[in-house]
Amino acid sequence: MAQAKVILAYSGGLDTSCILKWLLDKKYEVICYMANVGQDEDFDVARNKALKIGASKVVIDDLRETFVQDYVWPAIQAGLLYESRYLLGTSLARPCITVGLVKCAKENNAQYISHGATGKGNDQVRFELSCYSLWPEVKIIAPWRIPEFTEKFQGRQDLLKYASENGIPVSVTPKAPWSMDANLMHISYESGILENPENEPPSDLYQMTKDPKEAPNETYPIEINFKAGLPVYLKTRENKIINKPLEIFEFLNSIGGEYGIGRIDIVENRFIGLKSRGVYETPGGYILHAAHTDLEVFCLDKEVYRVKQNLRDRLSDYVYNGFWFSPEGQYVSKCISLAEETVNGTVKVKLYKGNVFIVGRSSDISLYNQDLVSMDKHAHFTPADATGFINIQALRLKEYHRFQQQVQKQK
Amino acid sequence: MAQAKVILAYSGGLDTSCILKWLLDKKYEVICYMANVGQDEDFDVARNKALKIGASKVVIDDLRETFVQDYVWPAIQAGLLYESRYLLGTSLARPCITVGLVKCAKENNAQYISHGATGKGNDQVRFELSCYSLWPEVKIIAPWRIPEFTEKFQGRQDLLKYASENGIPVSVTPKAPWSMDANLMHISYESGILENPENEPPSDLYQMTKDPKEAPNETYPIEINFKAGLPVYLKTRENKIINKPLEIFEFLNSIGGEYGIGRIDIVENRFIGLKSRGVYETPGGYILHAAHTDLEVFCLDKEVYRVKQNLRDRLSDYVYNGFWFSPEGQYVSKCISLAEETVNGTVKVKLYKGNVFIVGRSSDISLYNQDLVSMDKHAHFTPADATGFINIQALRLKEYHRFQQQVQKQK
Amino acid sequence: MAQAKVILAYSGGLDTSCILKWLLDKKYEVICYMANVGQDEDFDVARNKALKIGASKVVIDDLRETFVQDYVWPAIQAGLLYESRYLLGTSLARPCITVGLVKCAKENNAQYISHGATGKGNDQVRFELSCYSLWPEVKIIAPWRIPEFTEKFQGRQDLLKYASENGIPVSVTPKAPWSMDANLMHISYESGILENPENEPPSDLYQMTKDPKEAPNETYPIEINFKAGLPVYLKTRENKIINKPLEIFEFLNSIGGEYGIGRIDIVENRFIGLKSRGVYETPGGYILHAAHTDLEVFCLDKEVYRVKQNLRDRLSDYVYNGFWFSPEGQYVSKCISLAEETVNGTVKVKLYKGNVFIVGRSSDISLYNQDLVSMDKHAHFTPADATGFINIQALRLKEYHRFQQQVQKQK
Amino acid sequence: MAQAKVILAYSGGLDTSCILKWLLDKKYEVICYMANVGQDEDFDVARNKALKIGASKVVIDDLRETFVQDYVWPAIQAGLLYESRYLLGTSLARPCITVGLVKCAKENNAQYISHGATGKGNDQVRFELSCYSLWPEVKIIAPWRIPEFTEKFQGRQDLLKYASENGIPVSVTPKAPWSMDANLMHISYESGILENPENEPPSDLYQMTKDPKEAPNETYPIEINFKAGLPVYLKTRENKIINKPLEIFEFLNSIGGEYGIGRIDIVENRFIGLKSRGVYETPGGYILHAAHTDLEVFCLDKEVYRVKQNLRDRLSDYVYNGFWFSPEGQYVSKCISLAEETVNGTVKVKLYKGNVFIVGRSSDISLYNQDLVSMDKHAHFTPADATGFINIQALRLKEYHRFQQQVQKQK
Repeated sequence: MAQAKVILAYSGGLDTSCILKWLLDKKYEVICYMANVGQDEDFDVARNKALKIGASKVVIDDLRETFVQDYVWPAIQAGLLYESRYLLGTSLARPCITVGLVKCAKENNAQYISHGATGKGNDQVRFELSCYSLWPEVKIIAPWRIPEFTEKFQGRQDLLKYASENGIPVSVTPKAPWSMDANLMHISYESGILENPENEPPSDLYQMTKDPKEAPNETYPIEINFKAGLPVYLKTRENKIINKPLEIFEFLNSIGGEYGIGRIDIVENRFIGLKSRGVYETPGGYILHAAHTDLEVFCLDKEVYRVKQNLRDRLSDYVYNGFWFSPEGQYVSKCISLAEETVNGTVKVKLYKGNVFIVGRSSDISLYNQDLVSMDKHAHFTPADATGFINIQALRLKEYHRFQQQVQKQK
Repeated sequence: MAQAKVILAYSGGLDTSCILKWLLDKKYEVICYMANVGQDEDFDVARNKALKIGASKVVIDDLRETFVQDYVWPAIQAGLLYESRYLLGTSLARPCITVGLVKCAKENNAQYISHGATGKGNDQVRFELSCYSLWPEVKIIAPWRIPEFTEKFQGRQDLLKYASENGIPVSVTPKAPWSMDANLMHISYESGILENPENEPPSDLYQMTKDPKEAPNETYPIEINFKAGLPVYLKTRENKIINKPLEIFEFLNSIGGEYGIGRIDIVENRFIGLKSRGVYETPGGYILHAAHTDLEVFCLDKEVYRVKQNLRDRLSDYVYNGFWFSPEGQYVSKCISLAEETVNGTVKVKLYKGNVFIVGRSSDISLYNQDLVSMDKHAHFTPADATGFINIQALRLKEYHRFQQQVQKQK
Repeated sequence: MAQAKVILAYSGGLDTSCILKWLLDKKYEVICYMANVGQDEDFDVARNKALKIGASKVVIDDLRETFVQDYVWPAIQAGLLYESRYLLGTSLARPCITVGLVKCAKENNAQYISHGATGKGNDQVRFELSCYSLWPEVKIIAPWRIPEFTEKFQGRQDLLKYASENGIPVSVTPKAPWSMDANLMHISYESGILENPENEPPSDLYQMTKDPKEAPNETYPIEINFKAGLPVYLKTRENKIINKPLEIFEFLNSIGGEYGIGRIDIVENRFIGLKSRGVYETPGGYILHAAHTDLEVFCLDKEVYRVKQNLRDRLSDYVYNGFWFSPEGQYVSKCISLAEETVNGTVKVKLYKGNVFIVGRSSDISLYNQDLVSMDKHAHFTPADATGFINIQALRLKEYHRFQQQVQKQK
Repeated sequence: MAQAKVILAYSGGLDTSCILKWLLDKKYEVICYMANVGQDEDFDVARNKALKIGASKVVIDDLRETFVQDYVWPAIQAGLLYESRYLLGTSLARPCITVGLVKCAKENNAQYISHGATGKGNDQVRFELSCYSLWPEVKIIAPWRIPEFTEKFQGRQDLLKYASENGIPVSVTPKAPWSMDANLMHISYESGILENPENEPPSDLYQMTKDPKEAPNETYPIEINFKAGLPVYLKTRENKIINKPLEIFEFLNSIGGEYGIGRIDIVENRFIGLKSRGVYETPGGYILHAAHTDLEVFCLDKEVYRVKQNLRDRLSDYVYNGFWFSPEGQYVSKCISLAEETVNGTVKVKLYKGNVFIVGRSSDISLYNQDLVSMDKHAHFTPADATGFINIQALRLKEYHRFQQQVQKQK
């Protein structure tokens, strides 16, 4: 019988290196798959490490453009926000990477996909639900949920010992007392010393953003143009136009990082029902989210906006929980895109030491009507109409008052 | 027949002074009612002005404590936010003032209430719906919607001329090219040069907050304690405890103002269907909102939080639209209070040049379970359970994949 | 100056005949517009009456096909239902008629549209909002809201007197002690003796449906086929296929009427805030609604269904309130159509004395998977997975229990 | 070590009898718990059977009163309805029975609870989530998810063989080709020949209700009185008053069954993501639901009704999915009870061959205002106000029209 083939989502770190070796011990052929979603990683070093451990092949897949265009952009368009604050950086990367994993598996005739996500986290769910959506027949190996594996590796010491015994190179840099996950959209930090929600994250934790106190003393103005709710181009302080999605996003990450934008420290509800503490830095995403939020209320009809916001809240949960490719995820995305068709225009923002100030917005075509709203003009507005409007609204309130009087009398 | 008596919501400004005189011309007896909701006003000057014009009486009503406790506090508890950004400072003051107006009317046997709110705005609606809810029989005189009045006073010049002809004192300070409304919670600015949504508000507009660039260079730490979602006390940098609602709020306004906190520039949808541009500064409210938002996700059950957020969105609209005293407003408020019963704890925040950073939170009793979430412990958690959880969630996704294959075949 | 021209929505009855005459008295040229939306009316008699009174022209517009295809069908597709029970028959006809009115006005260079809807009802709102959506410049004359008119015509006696004085023919049939409105979809009854919500409607009120007690003693089976949530064809007991929308609907009205289907007696909330009592009979609509409801849950993904139902509730309110042509009405309709794309299949129903029994459903392609759900097969289902699923769901519940113990201790 | 003790939810049927024996084989001490929730069962026979097989004790618990008062009544009050049609009869019984199970376990110092619910169904989830909510430390034995058990018992034949080998008495009545579950609220039927959703259920399936064709030829009138949305008393055709919850419900089940009320045949979405076909008969519940639905719209404020209906939809899902005792289930229940405080009054219904006709409703205190809505009176209503109301609503629609013109021009 041919050897069973596994595609392992490989990071180059200690965990997935041990998993690689463990899968080899189990007699699988293992192809390591590394998605480049913008994390700071030396892919060549990682490739060599995997090959040295025994991977039959290492696939390095540059997903940065698709990640920005097909995941980050729609998230900005929808205004996705989990539990009022989290911009979903990790949640967006997972389905993107899964597409790469599944493609790699099919190209290499593999039947298995394996990953190093832990058993208490969201990422296992996001990876696997995306896998099953795209490829229901896939078999998944999640070592951190396999008793044999978790008994063997009860802590970091067991991993280090196994690595040492099996000639797996270990980074000499001491491990930070937290874990992190990075991609173009954000870096997330959790676990370790962050598990106590009362402790302030140490200042040396942040890697994408400067401490606002060390950010420049002047403001930095940008203009961001959207069409159908999607970023189209931006104009820098120096009047340079940037109009490729990846370049726009990289510029905003860079300038946003410089200006200390987009740090949050929150406790959130994981899909599996635990509360966990996460610290995130999302410089470019935060700027785009703020600008889009402003333009959207400017452009959308009042009631359409309300329907869309309700759909946005649903989609935020779907995406967080790993349902990007689900029927409801796909459906609600389409509905939101429909709503956004007329979110066209330019937003002027100013960055300053952690702040994104919105200072103006415009649109060639718009529901905003300066003549109509002006206090100095009566254009098409009859103030007396407001009397009838109020009186009719008051009918129900007066009836309720009458009702309450009845209730009082009965008592 | 006895002379009809009007309670006029009097501000001391040009508009309501002319309305006062106009009502007197119409042979009404007029009692001027001035609510002190924390605006910066010389009430004695205003009183004398009203008496001089001909008011039979001037009632000055200090509503600051009730405003904070009965309107601002519940709004913070509920997390009220209109169209994702506006903290509803004006909307909250209107029902509070109306209670005072109605009380004053009843004490003085008046049948009429009059106000100077314009015909295109939200405040006319908020005042009048609150009036009708509390006192359905009231008769309301809204001069800015009465053709006789609006024809006589077509612009500011007409008001100035009338004032001059009738001995109404006019402030020598030239009018700012925008209008403003102030109370303890915020100052709002609109109209005039702000009507062009593309123009940045001038830097000399803001009165409650410093420009973040001129704010102190160090951070300012505060701890804020909540019980049932309501602020209970705060601890200043100097470890001073403040525990009276009005004092807490005044302190936060002062320190928040000093640190440049809580400025927003937005376009919003008015109840009557117009889009308008508003600029707001809400220093204390912004700090409390941020702290409460953090504590709420920390304390509430995941699903209860979602129900509550949905109710919050509804209540935000009700309050903005003037339905504070409506059946739905009262009902949803009660439901939200029920949800908040267990939102108890302390949030550590740091203010810095426009930013409110949340840097930690704690609660004596909490759904957060550090042992359970810890990556280093297995306490009561069986990772293998997650496999079943994911597989069952995947059932529906696999079915959908099967379905899509059918759809493809049919095409 | 040319004479101002009015298009009057004319019914042939006493009210609109008096309005016609009154408009003529006011020196308008009046064109009477009669929409045929399936009501039982002798249009020739009405035409002659209008011309005799002085209309310059009478336009009779057969809207039955567009009413069924463009209004009733989408309502069935969306599952529209107001306040859990009302199928919106009148609400759907109003925008349909308005399209005809506006077209007629434009073809005849009229500037005015007039109607006989009363000032307390919903129909004035539906007519006028539809008019303003389609043609913002239109001027509307609503005599029942014009004090001069309402003072002149304080009751039916005044109308009769005016008719008699002006040679307006009056029906010799005595007026029923209620008012009614009929179209292809339903007849609605309200006012008069129905205003007491405790009184049972008299048995001679109903015109579209037989009393269930007098319906046939055997069941009547029908099969109804839908594509994308829209009715495509039906098969009668005699295996006759009917596949034109108007014919399908007329058949269902006829057979449904014969079998006593679709009577309801409700109190509902009008848009303007009043509660009113309405009695409706909607035979064909009721059958289609029941069949569609069944097929929809059968075909749609569970979560998509929930999103769609929420949108359905919103759209039901929009349509009831007259916002068919509004941005939100159009937007939500499109979203619902998207969801319904895969609602394809056949529903077997049996009619019997007021009941519509659903007795089976099928679809060529379907999310229903008999193998998967079968108790006798294990196809692709691992029961042990349910253990993990339940245990993970239980995590949050156990945490809540732990929390409640803490709360207890604190007390 | 003491023998481990299991409380088995025992039905007396083949499955749980085999489970009982299997648990004994596994060396557990087994106490059989039988909840009387109104199913048609000879409890003495079942008791003797269990003792004969080897149960150390049989507890028969009459939960009928608590089931009606604490589960069915609140469900009626809330208007619970799953996926537009299912009244949740089984879902309501599960938490009620679980309370009994847990109480029994604690009284008998048992550590385990076992049940015979299958691995594909909803009931396993409902039982176990309720257990874990009430008693997080409980250990659950679900044999139908234990591979050792499911391999041993792959079909009914294996159970029969095991029964015969172990002297377990087997009913001589041949098993129906479907499964059923009965309680006071309903009987549900599924599986077997019902798994094909196209097949009409056989007429001999129904046990609680007569075929409507065999129901009496006259109507049967009842008056049902509610207070705070809960049934208080009913008046029979013979003017007999029934006012104890269990008696009210038993009467309605009996008369509703006689009149063929409350049969439905649906496909529904199970919590675990499968679609399944269920046939239900819920005579009393259906009558109460219809009456309550009518009274609720009559009594509640329009907007409060909308909030409540949204909460109702959420709670219906919670209850179906087994989250009766969850934080969200308890919270939303409380909110709904708050809304229902003023749902007081009497509804007149008439039963007739499968139909529940609502023919009138009244309330001592009510928001319904006959004077206000009357077409013959102007009480407190100024028709001209409606003009302003409509014109203000139209502002937004006209703006949207203007906007669409801009969009057209741009194309």
